Amino acid sequence: MIVVMRAEATPDQVDHVKNLITDMGLTPHPIVGTDLTVVAVIGDDRKKDGSVLETAAGVDRVLKVLKPYKMSARSEHHMQTTPVRLGQGDGCVFGGTNVSVIAGPCSVESREQILESARAARAAGAHALRGGAFKPRTNPYSFQGLGEEGLEYLAEAREETGLPIVTEVVAETDIELVDRYTDCIQIGTRNAQNFRLLEAIGKSTQTPVLFKRGMWMTLDEYLQAAEYLLAHGNPNVILCERGIRTFEKFSRNTLSLAAVAELKDRTHLPVVSDPSHGTGVARLVPAMCRASIAAGADGLALEMHPDPEHALTDGAQSINPAALSELMPQLARIADAVGRGMLLPEAASV
Amino acid sequence: MIVVMRAEATPDQVDHVKNLITDMGLTPHPIVGTDLTVVAVIGDDRKKDGSVLETAAGVDRVLKVLKPYKMSARSEHHMQTTPVRLGQGDGCVFGGTNVSVIAGPCSVESREQILESARAARAAGAHALRGGAFKPRTNPYSFQGLGEEGLEYLAEAREETGLPIVTEVVAETDIELVDRYTDCIQIGTRNAQNFRLLEAIGKSTQTPVLFKRGMWMTLDEYLQAAEYLLAHGNPNVILCERGIRTFEKFSRNTLSLAAVAELKDRTHLPVVSDPSHGTGVARLVPAMCRASIAAGADGLALEMHPDPEHALTDGAQSINPAALSELMPQLARIADAVGRGMLLPEAASV
Amino acid sequence: MIVVMRAEATPDQVDHVKNLITDMGLTPHPIVGTDLTVVAVIGDDRKKDGSVLETAAGVDRVLKVLKPYKMSARSEHHMQTTPVRLGQGDGCVFGGTNVSVIAGPCSVESREQILESARAARAAGAHALRGGAFKPRTNPYSFQGLGEEGLEYLAEAREETGLPIVTEVVAETDIELVDRYTDCIQIGTRNAQNFRLLEAIGKSTQTPVLFKRGMWMTLDEYLQAAEYLLAHGNPNVILCERGIRTFEKFSRNTLSLAAVAELKDRTHLPVVSDPSHGTGVARLVPAMCRASIAAGADGLALEMHPDPEHALTDGAQSINPAALSELMPQLARIADAVGRGMLLPEAASV
Amino acid sequence: MIVVMRAEATPDQVDHVKNLITDMGLTPHPIVGTDLTVVAVIGDDRKKDGSVLETAAGVDRVLKVLKPYKMSARSEHHMQTTPVRLGQGDGCVFGGTNVSVIAGPCSVESREQILESARAARAAGAHALRGGAFKPRTNPYSFQGLGEEGLEYLAEAREETGLPIVTEVVAETDIELVDRYTDCIQIGTRNAQNFRLLEAIGKSTQTPVLFKRGMWMTLDEYLQAAEYLLAHGNPNVILCERGIRTFEKFSRNTLSLAAVAELKDRTHLPVVSDPSHGTGVARLVPAMCRASIAAGADGLALEMHPDPEHALTDGAQSINPAALSELMPQLARIADAVGRGMLLPEAASV
Repeated sequence: MIVVMRAEATPDQVDHVKNLITDMGLTPHPIVGTDLTVVAVIGDDRKKDGSVLETAAGVDRVLKVLKPYKMSARSEHHMQTTPVRLGQGDGCVFGGTNVSVIAGPCSVESREQILESARAARAAGAHALRGGAFKPRTNPYSFQGLGEEGLEYLAEAREETGLPIVTEVVAETDIELVDRYTDCIQIGTRNAQNFRLLEAIGKSTQTPVLFKRGMWMTLDEYLQAAEYLLAHGNPNVILCERGIRTFEKFSRNTLSLAAVAELKDRTHLPVVSDPSHGTGVARLVPAMCRASIAAGADGLALEMHPDPEHALTDGAQSINPAALSELMPQLARIADAVGRGMLLPEAASV
Repeated sequence: MIVVMRAEATPDQVDHVKNLITDMGLTPHPIVGTDLTVVAVIGDDRKKDGSVLETAAGVDRVLKVLKPYKMSARSEHHMQTTPVRLGQGDGCVFGGTNVSVIAGPCSVESREQILESARAARAAGAHALRGGAFKPRTNPYSFQGLGEEGLEYLAEAREETGLPIVTEVVAETDIELVDRYTDCIQIGTRNAQNFRLLEAIGKSTQTPVLFKRGMWMTLDEYLQAAEYLLAHGNPNVILCERGIRTFEKFSRNTLSLAAVAELKDRTHLPVVSDPSHGTGVARLVPAMCRASIAAGADGLALEMHPDPEHALTDGAQSINPAALSELMPQLARIADAVGRGMLLPEAASV
Repeated sequence: MIVVMRAEATPDQVDHVKNLITDMGLTPHPIVGTDLTVVAVIGDDRKKDGSVLETAAGVDRVLKVLKPYKMSARSEHHMQTTPVRLGQGDGCVFGGTNVSVIAGPCSVESREQILESARAARAAGAHALRGGAFKPRTNPYSFQGLGEEGLEYLAEAREETGLPIVTEVVAETDIELVDRYTDCIQIGTRNAQNFRLLEAIGKSTQTPVLFKRGMWMTLDEYLQAAEYLLAHGNPNVILCERGIRTFEKFSRNTLSLAAVAELKDRTHLPVVSDPSHGTGVARLVPAMCRASIAAGADGLALEMHPDPEHALTDGAQSINPAALSELMPQLARIADAVGRGMLLPEAASV
Repeated sequence: MIVVMRAEATPDQVDHVKNLITDMGLTPHPIVGTDLTVVAVIGDDRKKDGSVLETAAGVDRVLKVLKPYKMSARSEHHMQTTPVRLGQGDGCVFGGTNVSVIAGPCSVESREQILESARAARAAGAHALRGGAFKPRTNPYSFQGLGEEGLEYLAEAREETGLPIVTEVVAETDIELVDRYTDCIQIGTRNAQNFRLLEAIGKSTQTPVLFKRGMWMTLDEYLQAAEYLLAHGNPNVILCERGIRTFEKFSRNTLSLAAVAELKDRTHLPVVSDPSHGTGVARLVPAMCRASIAAGADGLALEMHPDPEHALTDGAQSINPAALSELMPQLARIADAVGRGMLLPEAASV
């Protein structure tokens, strides 16, 4: 880190800062400029809270230099993207040459609804099925999901279609249960800094994790949160940009596709995009799916419902099966244009 | 809610929307304007996801009209602020005539540190002591708190000074343990939509809760989250504005004092302000404490550390005991200027 | 508009609101719901400041229903995108089947620099040349542009390469001068609500305008600002998403590609994207160019400098000629994948 | 500035960066850390666009160290706040011991309306009268102000009440006209980076300027914009926090009172707060006025209209004369509590 002194800082104040740095087990290296002095800090300061130096007299501010995450960093030691495979076989892989698509309703509402969704996803050429059995709902009086019953319906849908399934965990106490059923554990945006949940998932399973960015998190914060999963033992982490909170009013969130490109540069973990939550508007989803693949995403997680007008949750941002079927071949063409590929069944690719 | 049709919507599309509304058990009431048609919806639509109507053909958007929270709402049935008392006696009450101040370090670092903090808080005239034993840390390699050992030190500090204590819970599995020690359970910003944690706290205890706003949450979302606590059985909820994420760079968050004033209008729950997290800069904390009381806050939660330069966590935003001692009488004068009061020991009020 | 009354509003308060609406020359239509009353307003309220009703006793809030812009709206009367042509011929058109690319340095720095830029842009297959002669600079001591000398160099570059030129106007008093030289007048983000400048450009010329979105503006505000140009007489307006202010730190702005898709839905004006300002990071520009075309943009405005490391302005976000040459054929392939095309010279398209 | 190299940067890349720095006339000072190398730059780099170094191979990012503004900086050479006086006498000074209040309607709507406003402001104890004659309106079809006629009414109001007047300039060509009438020129938020307007005002007059922060501007950008006024010759600049764009929905903007406190630390210019635009909600204005004074503001600019329900512009955020009369003595008490004062006529101070 670099400690920037105020222009009027005294030599004694600089000395005091040097002592504080030495106390941390680090080495201060002062540089006297024309206008002010900065003190560079030599050593690994990642585990130190260097910002305390901002309270020392004469200090203007502290600039961080080292990246605060290690295991997820793309570096000379780890240049290649780490592919993460969902289910058996190669039908759904994130971070390889091909891009993959997870589609399905926000919630499992009934056996019929999720089976119908699975068939539609399969027919359109999607590579995995999503559906929530435990739902984190903004309003306490809203539908909260079917629980284990929903997991059973998801398993049945996998059985019938062969699609691996993705479903959310919202509490430490549910991990074992959900993990028994699912091919991929989703961590939602509201739990993105629920560190105890991250730690527990990291420790208890190696099942792939679809880890959504908190809608308030900087990329540094996001990658540090992912580090909880990695450091506690689960290396199969898929990152997911799902929109951030901004002043925009036409969309529920602002999908930041530059974040996808930046994450691809910073980390070896695969990165997907979720245009459904990223916009909150079904009408905008197909264009944002296309843009995500063009931006370099390793895949998509999107909401598709057989009957959005009657969905119990998130209908406003769910596309219908016909829209998905129209979209998939477009995505394949864009994947091709950016040097990637996409597996499509014969019928869907026409 | 109000469904706004597109200008070019056809009569059939309006009829379809009316049918969808009827299907929800609600009554549509179309109004034909000069430019377009809107369909007002009669009935309690709070538990319906009306936004699904946005996917119907011819619909422009859906406007919500009813407040999505009930138990926390200030209304003709509940006009008075609900006072919440910490510990025994009347030394620390939020939501009454007097304003109260919670002060203390971010983390319990050692027995000596928290005892020293408690004495300093007491001497300055603070009304409760804060200190974290379980810390949600952005970085997995940072100090994560002393756990139960920290709770014991807090209890000892209460014993010595008489100050009630406030400490954070970060996981469902810790609630019982923490509740055995503390006078007030803090829920941190990162868990503000950890609905399972909220539900569990609501169900298992009536100990007062200091519930911080998520740094990304609108007030509607915040009050719905508080509703989880209330609806599951804990009525002793203190709200806390602690800064939101914006483009500002000089501060870690943007403290929204208008949110304090607006919350005081919307809810009967007491509302406090946390200028330490709200700015992230110790130098700005005293001015924001003064402004918070002037804005109508029922009190403050702030970080004070006996030696900020050596704090293990959040030193950059912690004021020292001398600054707190200087601040408290100023706050008392401002409380007085806005028609409130503040209990101050003889010595502190000079 | 819809006036939402508070739940506790009295019949007298509703009557008062009805009277205020009648005073505005509009017709009130009250609807009594189960929880509260709303008053729908019949008539064209676009020119009324309906928000004054929020100060009336018993009013909770006022919801706008009508779109506040007219001439730019895509509607049943104006479904087709309005193509805007730069220069003579069909080499550079925005809003037709083909997408077009404007490339060039932030500033005209010298005759050599802009000629070299123009040749590189031409060789790579770009369709227009940008370069600023009058620069709005954040810092008053920074390079402010070459003024008319810069315009002359731009004209010379056009002469040599045949590329139409795009350059910025920052003051009413420069319009005539700039208009004498340029094929397209750029209005920068900081002047996006400089209404007098917009009005003056609208009145004095029909030269195409590249009108950048203010980095703080909602789409409603942006389209109303465009309306100043249209209503005062210039129909040749190209909109441009260039990034908004958010909490993100890795990029200077957050490029909102959903805004491109939404604008394409709302307005018949062509919409382009500026990934250079939209990210501020040259490394991210190619991916965001690809994503923009995939999102449905009618073209791009990007910064390319022959020697970014020595650029006087905005070097950090400028790609070099080699990067542009690599990018253009990729864009052509993506344009093709989304049903558009892009004119590329034989050499560039390999 | 400090150039942070990537961990994998080669010695050649570091050398190249050193050469680029030397080319700028500055001195590179490399520091080899345990994980990576940083290159500190010695010399005044304020006029250089150091960010170009981010395009050099091996560079991670460039951190600015020097403050980008000089004349407005509070420093050892200029510790005292510069008081700015409106009109003759000491009735309205910003930046001295006393705080002052500017009140009045958004727009001058008629002779009667502004005279009535002035009398109400005077009676309540306000120190200056505001009112717009040239209005920057979001919508081109809205009321745009009375122009010179409005200025004449303002002058008449001053004549009658003795209150100095504050009114906005929106175009370079109006400066001379407005300056002939007004005691203080307002520059609105939308023109905060209209550098040509700032430059022209700086050059042509020494009349005090009430310079509102752009709703998208960081404090560094804001102080650089103020520097345009100072550097071109007008030292009488009053800064004004008026709210920024954030995700909040209950208010039109988010008033950042920490920005007031931070500005007071960084600059010797007086700083006032505008809670009317800062919230957009009349109901919240009094609390935010109180909070602003408690936060250390040198005064207020607020909207008061004799009949908000019939205001032509900004009625929703205008308080009425009774509310102002109630507010002023409260502000005086808070000013007193923070060691300031406020001039109040006998009648108003009761």
